[in-house]
This record gives sequence, C-alpha cells and structure tokens, in this order.
Amino acid sequence: MPTYKAPVDDTLFLLNDVFHLDRYGNLPGFGDASPDVVEAVLREAAKFSEEVLTPLNRVGDKEGCTRHPDGSVATPTGFKDAFKQMVEGGWIGISVPAEFGGQDLPATLTVAVNEMLCSANMAFAMYPGLTQGAIAALLAHASPELKKKYLPKMVTGEWTGTMNLTEPHCGTDLGLLRTKAVKQADGSYQITGTKIFISAGEHDLASNIVHLVLARIEGAPAGTKGISLFVVPKLTVKDDGSLGAPNGVSCGSIEEKMGIHANSTCVMNYDGAAGWLVGQENRGLPAMFTMMNEARLGVAVQGLALSEVAYQNAAIYAKERLQGRALSGAKYPDKAADPIIVHPDVRRTLMTIRAFNEAARALVLWTALKGDIARRSEDGKERQSADDYMGLLTPVVKGVLTDSGFANTVMAQQVFGGHGYIAEHGMEQFVRDARIAMIYEGANGIQALDLVGRKLGKDGGRALMAFINEVGGFIKEKSADDGMKPYVTPLGVALGHLQQASMWFMQNAMAKPDNAGAGATDYMHMFGLVALGYMWCRIAEAAIAHAKTNGAGHRMSAKLTTARFFMERMLPETAAHFARIQSGAGSTMELPDEAF
Amino acid sequence: MPTYKAPVDDTLFLLNDVFHLDRYGNLPGFGDASPDVVEAVLREAAKFSEEVLTPLNRVGDKEGCTRHPDGSVATPTGFKDAFKQMVEGGWIGISVPAEFGGQDLPATLTVAVNEMLCSANMAFAMYPGLTQGAIAALLAHASPELKKKYLPKMVTGEWTGTMNLTEPHCGTDLGLLRTKAVKQADGSYQITGTKIFISAGEHDLASNIVHLVLARIEGAPAGTKGISLFVVPKLTVKDDGSLGAPNGVSCGSIEEKMGIHANSTCVMNYDGAAGWLVGQENRGLPAMFTMMNEARLGVAVQGLALSEVAYQNAAIYAKERLQGRALSGAKYPDKAADPIIVHPDVRRTLMTIRAFNEAARALVLWTALKGDIARRSEDGKERQSADDYMGLLTPVVKGVLTDSGFANTVMAQQVFGGHGYIAEHGMEQFVRDARIAMIYEGANGIQALDLVGRKLGKDGGRALMAFINEVGGFIKEKSADDGMKPYVTPLGVALGHLQQASMWFMQNAMAKPDNAGAGATDYMHMFGLVALGYMWCRIAEAAIAHAKTNGAGHRMSAKLTTARFFMERMLPETAAHFARIQSGAGSTMELPDEAF
Repeated sequence: MPTYKAPVDDTLFLLNDVFHLDRYGNLPGFGDASPDVVEAVLREAAKFSEEVLTPLNRVGDKEGCTRHPDGSVATPTGFKDAFKQMVEGGWIGISVPAEFGGQDLPATLTVAVNEMLCSANMAFAMYPGLTQGAIAALLAHASPELKKKYLPKMVTGEWTGTMNLTEPHCGTDLGLLRTKAVKQADGSYQITGTKIFISAGEHDLASNIVHLVLARIEGAPAGTKGISLFVVPKLTVKDDGSLGAPNGVSCGSIEEKMGIHANSTCVMNYDGAAGWLVGQENRGLPAMFTMMNEARLGVAVQGLALSEVAYQNAAIYAKERLQGRALSGAKYPDKAADPIIVHPDVRRTLMTIRAFNEAARALVLWTALKGDIARRSEDGKERQSADDYMGLLTPVVKGVLTDSGFANTVMAQQVFGGHGYIAEHGMEQFVRDARIAMIYEGANGIQALDLVGRKLGKDGGRALMAFINEVGGFIKEKSADDGMKPYVTPLGVALGHLQQASMWFMQNAMAKPDNAGAGATDYMHMFGLVALGYMWCRIAEAAIAHAKTNGAGHRMSAKLTTARFFMERMLPETAAHFARIQSGAGSTMELPDEAF
Repeated sequence: MPTYKAPVDDTLFLLNDVFHLDRYGNLPGFGDASPDVVEAVLREAAKFSEEVLTPLNRVGDKEGCTRHPDGSVATPTGFKDAFKQMVEGGWIGISVPAEFGGQDLPATLTVAVNEMLCSANMAFAMYPGLTQGAIAALLAHASPELKKKYLPKMVTGEWTGTMNLTEPHCGTDLGLLRTKAVKQADGSYQITGTKIFISAGEHDLASNIVHLVLARIEGAPAGTKGISLFVVPKLTVKDDGSLGAPNGVSCGSIEEKMGIHANSTCVMNYDGAAGWLVGQENRGLPAMFTMMNEARLGVAVQGLALSEVAYQNAAIYAKERLQGRALSGAKYPDKAADPIIVHPDVRRTLMTIRAFNEAARALVLWTALKGDIARRSEDGKERQSADDYMGLLTPVVKGVLTDSGFANTVMAQQVFGGHGYIAEHGMEQFVRDARIAMIYEGANGIQALDLVGRKLGKDGGRALMAFINEVGGFIKEKSADDGMKPYVTPLGVALGHLQQASMWFMQNAMAKPDNAGAGATDYMHMFGLVALGYMWCRIAEAAIAHAKTNGAGHRMSAKLTTARFFMERMLPETAAHFARIQSGAGSTMELPDEAF
C-alpha cells in the first residue's frame, strides 16, 4: 500500500525563499496570506491528504464508480465521508472572493494544496478540482443573478461542477459540436444533445451538480463562432435557493477506463434540459478559453503530483529492498544484500524524478503567481506582462509536466521490479492515473501547437521576448558568480537552443506551416527544459543564500546536487530537440496518407 | 475493438532481400527453409493470429484468469479452443529437432511467428512462449531419459512449461534463493519452497504442466553457486508416458496485475514435490543462462509486437477520425474536417513508431539468425562470432525494444485522444500489456548493467570490436555511394559516439565502477540506436536494389523516407546519451542514502 508525505517544507521554501511571496503584499488578498497563514493552510491540507485521502486511493481504484439502473452513480467506499470533510474544511473556496463565501487567498496557494490532494488521491481530487473550474467560469462570465444562485453552494462544495465540451465526434475540434439550445419564452434555453468524457458528471457526493455546457443556439453560425455556454443544473434551483425538480439531464453510462476509476467519467444525455446562458450568445468558446490557463495549470499539477508520490514510494522501496551488492563492494555488509539504492541505475532513476519534481513544483507555483498578478494587480502593465507569461507558459507547463509526470511514474514503477506490476503495491495505479493528464484539457500535441502556432507570434512575440530577456538577464547577472556558474552556464547553452529554434521557426514556418507543426512537440519540451532549468537556478540561488544565513545543511546541499544533476543529465536534451526541429517537416510529411 | 494485420510481406522482404536467408542453406535445417516453405509458414501463422487470436485479446483482458478454491485456474473464454488450434498447427515445435517431434526449421522463423502471436494476443502467446523456453532448457541440459519423457508432449503443446526463478525476497539476486531440494533414495529430489510471478503456472489449456525450478540442494553452498535446476511436473509421469498422481505443487494464488490479465501469474507452492535434476548439481544458474539469450530475445519481440499492433490501430484511427484542418489549408475540403493524419504532430508520432518497428523487426530477425548460426554452424569460428554477437546484442535488443515498444504504445494511444483512455478501443490494454516486458527476464536496468559490466569487456572486448568493425565497414563501403549517403553519413556520427562512449568507460570505469553504472542505460539506448540505424542502412540498401530490379514502387520508396526520418529525428539522440554518460557518476551518487 503506497504512502504519501506532503512536501510542505519544500513548498514553503519555494514560496518564501525562492519567490518571496511577502514582496507581493500589495496585491489584493495577498496581505492576508502571511507566512503563518500560508504554513497553517499547507499543514492542514497535508494532514487531510495524508490521513484521509491517501488510504482511499487504492480502494477507489479497485471499486471504481457504479452506475445504477436509475442513472445514479455511487462513488467508492469512504468517498462520501472524505468529501464531507473536504466541504467542512472549506478547501474548495480558498481562493474565491469573500463575497461568494471564499477566503480570497492567492490562487498560488490553491495550486500548492491541489498538488497534495492529487498526490494523495487524484480521482478524488478531480471532484473539487472540476468544481473550482466551474466556479472560475461563472465568476468570469455569469450574470450577477446566476452567480448569486450557484456560486455560494459550489464554493462550499455542497454542489459540485462539471465542464461539458466533448461530443462523440468532436473533442479537439469543437467547431463540429451539435448539442442544441432552443430559446424559451422565459429567457432560458432547452438543451439537447450528448456529451461524453464528462468527469464527475454524476455521483453521490453532493446534493446538486452544476453542469457547464457548450451548445449551439438554434440558428447560430456553424463552426466555433456559433457556440454558447450554458449552466444546466442537475436539479433546478428555485428562486429561494432551494432545490426543485430534476432537470432533463442524466448519466447514460460511465466509461470503463485505464485509470482514475474512482472518478465517474460519464456520457451525459441532455434531453430538453433547462439551461441558462453564461456570458453572451455565440461567445461560449472565448468564455471557456479565459479559464483555460487555470484549468491546464491544474492538469499540469496532476502530472507533478503523481510524479511526486511515485517518487516517494520508489525511494522508500529502494532503501528497503535488499538485492545484489554495490559495484564498488558491499555497502551494507551486515545485511544479506545491499538495498537497491546503492545501484547507480536506481539512483539515476530517483535523481531524474526528483530533479524534475522540485523544479516542476517551482514552475507551477511561479506560473500560478503570475496568474494571481494578472488577475489582481492594480498596475495595467504588470497585469499584461503577467498575463503574457501565463499564456506563453501554460501550454509548456501542461504538456511537459504531464508527459514527464507520466514518464516518471513509469520509472518509479520500474524501481519495484516485478512488484511494480502488481496492483497491491499501487505503483501501476499511479501510471494508469497519470496517463490521462497527457490527454485531457487539450492533448499534449495540441498544447505544442498552441505554443508554436499561437503563443510564439502573438503580439509580435512580446511574451517570448520577455521570457528570454528574463532568463537571459538572470544568467548574465549571475555569470560572474562562481557559486552560480555550474547552473547558469548550462542554462545559457539551453537558452541559446531555444532562441535559435524560435528563429528557425520564424524563418521556415511562415511559408510552410508544417515546419512548425513537425517541430512543435520538440519545441515545447525544449522550452520546458529551459523553464525547469531556470527554476533550478532560482532554487540554487535561494539555497546558497539560505545556507549563508542558516548555515550549510543537508537539505540545501541536496538541492545544489540535484540542480547539478539536472544541468548535467537532463538539460543537454535541448540539443537533440533542436536537431529534430531543424530537420523540418520533410520526411515527416512525405508519405501519402494511404502509406500508413 | 483493435484489429491486426500481420506484416508478412515486410518480414519476407527482410528475410529474403535484406538478410538473404538463401545464403545460409548450408546450415543444418536451413535447407528445408526454402522461400516457399517460409512464406507458407508465415501466411498460416498470420491467418491464425489475425482470425483466432486477435478477437480473443480484449476478452482475455476483461475476463482474466480465475483461480478456483481447489487451486485450479480457468483461462478466459475461447482460450482453450484457440490453444487446441495452436497444438494442431504444430506451432510450438517449428524450430525443435525432428527427433522430438519438431520441424527443425530456423529459430529465426519461430521469432517471426512469435511476433505475430504476440501482436494478436500477448497474454495468450506467453503460454506457448514459455513452453518453448522450457523445451530449450531441457534440450540443452536434461538427460536423455528426461528428454524422452517430457519433450515430445511439450513440443506438441499437449503439455506446457514454466520457469520458476523468483521468490518473494529475491528476483534479480538469485543468490538469495531459499527453495530446498532434498535428495531421495530413488535419485529424485523433494522440492519445497515458494515461487512467485510464475507465468502460466497453472491453467486449463494442457493436460500437464512441466515446471522448471531453481532450488538449493541440502548442503549446497550459499549464493549463486549452490543452485540447481529441476524439472517438476504438475502430474507425475509414469515410465510408459501416461500421467500419474498429482505432484506436491499447487497454485496458491494468482496476482492481480496491470496487464496480461489472460496469462495466469501464479504464486506456486512446492510442498515436497518430486523433482528431477536437470544438468549438474549446483550448476542451475549457468544452465538457465545458456537459454537466457533466446528468452530475452523473445521478450524483445513482445516489445516490437505491441508497438506494431498499436501502430496499426493508430494509423487506421488517424485516417478515419475527422478533426480540424491541415495547417496549410483543408486537405479534404469535402469532409466536415480533415482526418487527423494531416497534422504534422500526428504524422511525427506515426513515423516515429513505424521507423522503430521496421528496424526493430530487422534487428530481432538478424539477432535470431546469429543464434541459429551459433547453434547450427559446423564452422567453429563462425559459431563463436555469432555467439559473440548474440551475447552482445541480447541486452541491447531486450532493453531497447521493450523500452521503446512500451513508449510507442503510449504514443499510439495518444493518437486516439480521450478514446485512447477508454478500454473498449483496446489501446490502453496494449500499454498495460507492453509494460511488463521492461521488467521480466531481467529488468532493463539489469540489461544495461549486463551490457556495460559484462559484455563490453568480455574476451578483451572482442564482440564489441567485431560489431563496430561490421558497422564501420559497411559505412565505409557505402560512403562513396550517393544513394546511400543520407543513411550512412548520420550512422557514422552515431557510431562515433558509441566508440567514444565505449572508450570513456574504459578510461573512467576501471577505478570507479559507478561511472559505468550511472551511464549504463544511456549506453544501452545509444547502442540500440546505432544497431537500429545499421538495420535501416541495410534495409535502404535492399530497397534501392529491389527498386532497381522491380521498378520503383510506393513500398520501397516509403522505406527510404522512413529511413531518412530515422536518421534525421531519432538517431541524433545518441549525442544526448553521450553527454549524459560523460557526466559520470558524480551528481548521481553524491547524496547520502537517507536524503531520498
């Protein structure tokens, strides 16, 4: 049975020592996020994750969700009680404005908490996670009446939320969607259609479920410009806030899938269900896109979270499992064999995952902080620059953290040998659960295309230039500092690759867009390596400063070793990405479709 | 529901045009393998795989095996009938000497057939596959009496075989094993102990199961030098060959695991079971090792097989699924959207898998051919050189083909988007099934260590030198040929990396073995890339020759494009591997064990 210990100290180190959260006290809401409040929230979330959610993870996988003939769906044993505790803890609304019952704390903190929930029990964490996404959509676009009607109970978690985009014939290409909305005399709409892959679409954790549904209003244009967003509650809500009759929406079936068994993935049938327009007619897709960044960051966190919990269990196993002897001679001669952590290949595996996890955690917190600034700053220029950063980094963070997060669960499973393949150890569940994060909220190939096709050139490349200047500036500033050289020198090389690759796209993809498409995934991963490398430099800087103030300790010196491992063994991959990008679309696109 | 079409034409092209099987007609048994016999065998195996085994793959995954309270194990619906057809087809013994009922055809052909069986239904194919492994062990080491008693019925498949190595506390480190053997007056032994992870340990497909068991004879030395190999039948076999009483061996439980559900992975309890010594006392481990190469090649084939079937289904889906438009404008304007195969990132995915599959198939056939030569040649020097090759390439082929095979199933699954995560499409099963191949028959980290720690330096590096000379000689020979330049020039660069990395180990790992251990996995993958690159050069050479004789056709020109893709996009990775190797063990080994 896997265990989990939330990385509270590491998160605090990042927030306090690396990113200096205290410097953002002027942002609305950040004043309340004093170091002791932040620490208290994290320690409480850690306790809930470790003690309540972790033990339910295997149970949830084994039992899965059950759809009854009446269309109701039961979650696994223990989930109802755990969700009740979630509601009582007020976890869903920690970053929601106080007027709707939230605590108005930075979204950065929500991201840190969500990592813990996902590590402990990803399938469970999706229920509150999707509710947070629906809350964000309503906050941004719904009328005051709709907000007042739905938000307070969603913020507590008494009601949960969902996102309904995909249909059987359309996922990525939402322009093809067919779900219909017919306007009624009272201003509401009748929604009819079938949605698939609806996470948390039906369950027994909440008294109501608030579906956000994309549909096409009768007579609206074809394609993406005729799509509107609606709120469709499972049970209608009366004007006094009490629950009314069932609405015409039901769960037709739940999917049998590779992982996240404890989250119900539903086919949802809308049969003339009453819905209310969120935002403007035909502007449903842009409305969805405004919260895409947060949603994608949330999925990136899942990649990190599973990588972290898989790492922890692999490290424990590697220290316990006795097998063979160290290459340089027995290291624990009193034991029947050495623990497998003495073997360089096991070390390499653990170091690779660890070097990813710490930098990835920094990157999601840093990106979330930019999101907070973009939403909360009173300085327009600061908002714009933070928003640029968020837009540029979102596809990178989503694509890279979920690809690597999955790969890391596979590596951690490998440390267990044959035992990793057996369900009871829980390692194979991490692999199966992590796999979905590469797919949903925009498959990673789409993230890469979003980055290369949309974000790079946006506003004349303003966001990219700002990123390159920030990283380049940091390197320049530190290049004379002997303590920082081992980190900034390799980062300089990698940044050079990123600049050259960006240039290559500018020169070669205008006339032939396939040249960008064929290199998009490599570019995204190269970008991710540079961003993670930059985070390691920031961490190294803080670790050196921390050691100066508090004396050199094992924890800080481990960070420096891990930073060096990243620079020596992971960052050099940018060269291979660059070589692939430069090969262009030629051999990739040459064969006729029939040849496949 | 996934489909499968066996790659008969590609296999024939490799055997005939690339490797010129006809040139080996002087090897015993090869004379019978005329081109028409080979083709007939492959077409028949293809039919059986496509029509009988493929439809049972999902069924097998869904139902799994069931252990009844009496210890008997039922295989999934349809497996018994399919296995009966397997026996009737004589598939198990196609490469077994005629005196035991086999057809004495090249093992190369068995490898080609096994790829098809594994693509169609890996969990099923393991039952005959393990039987073939047990046959090989008995052929190599058993006394004439034991051979006569067991082999004929195993060769038909009336009885199946297993390998019993692992115990709860020992997998890789067999020196720790505890299963006991006590000699009896009649020359037999009483075997007592518990074995785990025993594939096909108990089932209902055959009337008897012949277990090969590693155990320690009472009084034998501790460690690996006190291990002996025994044959322990499920039902004892009377001298007239008829079945006698049940032996003291039973299936204690079957494991719940990530994949290959249709193969029963058993805990086997030996409770004073009667066993007979195979080979010499205390020489069990070397006996096992003599058939390790074939067993590992068999697992490598599983990696290729799942990559192939996953590719085929992803290619079909990519041509059918309509979503979005080509970057350069609609390619199928009459359809609601373009099929996703127009997107460069989807193409990149398909080309990557395909460029692996064709070269990997060449590599396993080529390695198997070396195995045939090592066993059958009458020229001692030829036998030695083939054996060297086999020994050197086995860890590379096992490690690289299963790592990449798994990664390719993940990539193929990604092409399906959300549908790839749903069980009914079958793509997620390929991922789960492929995962085990990286673990069993020596986890891939062990393969890398075997390569670097054992095979490189063996006999003064004779095998490595021979490989480098063969590849280097080929490059030199073709470097003046303009048609071959696009393939041999990049291979020369990669071969250079391999040579330099080998040199680096010689210079840096003698004094500090961890320097080899920390680079072992990178070296194995670098070696794999060079070997696959060499295969692509051989294929390109044959494709150009074929086109000259038969006229340029789509099939041959697709091979040249795919070879170029490999050279441009996959081979350059050797540089990143080399960079990692050169970084040595420093940051990998620096942290104390407690820091993890």
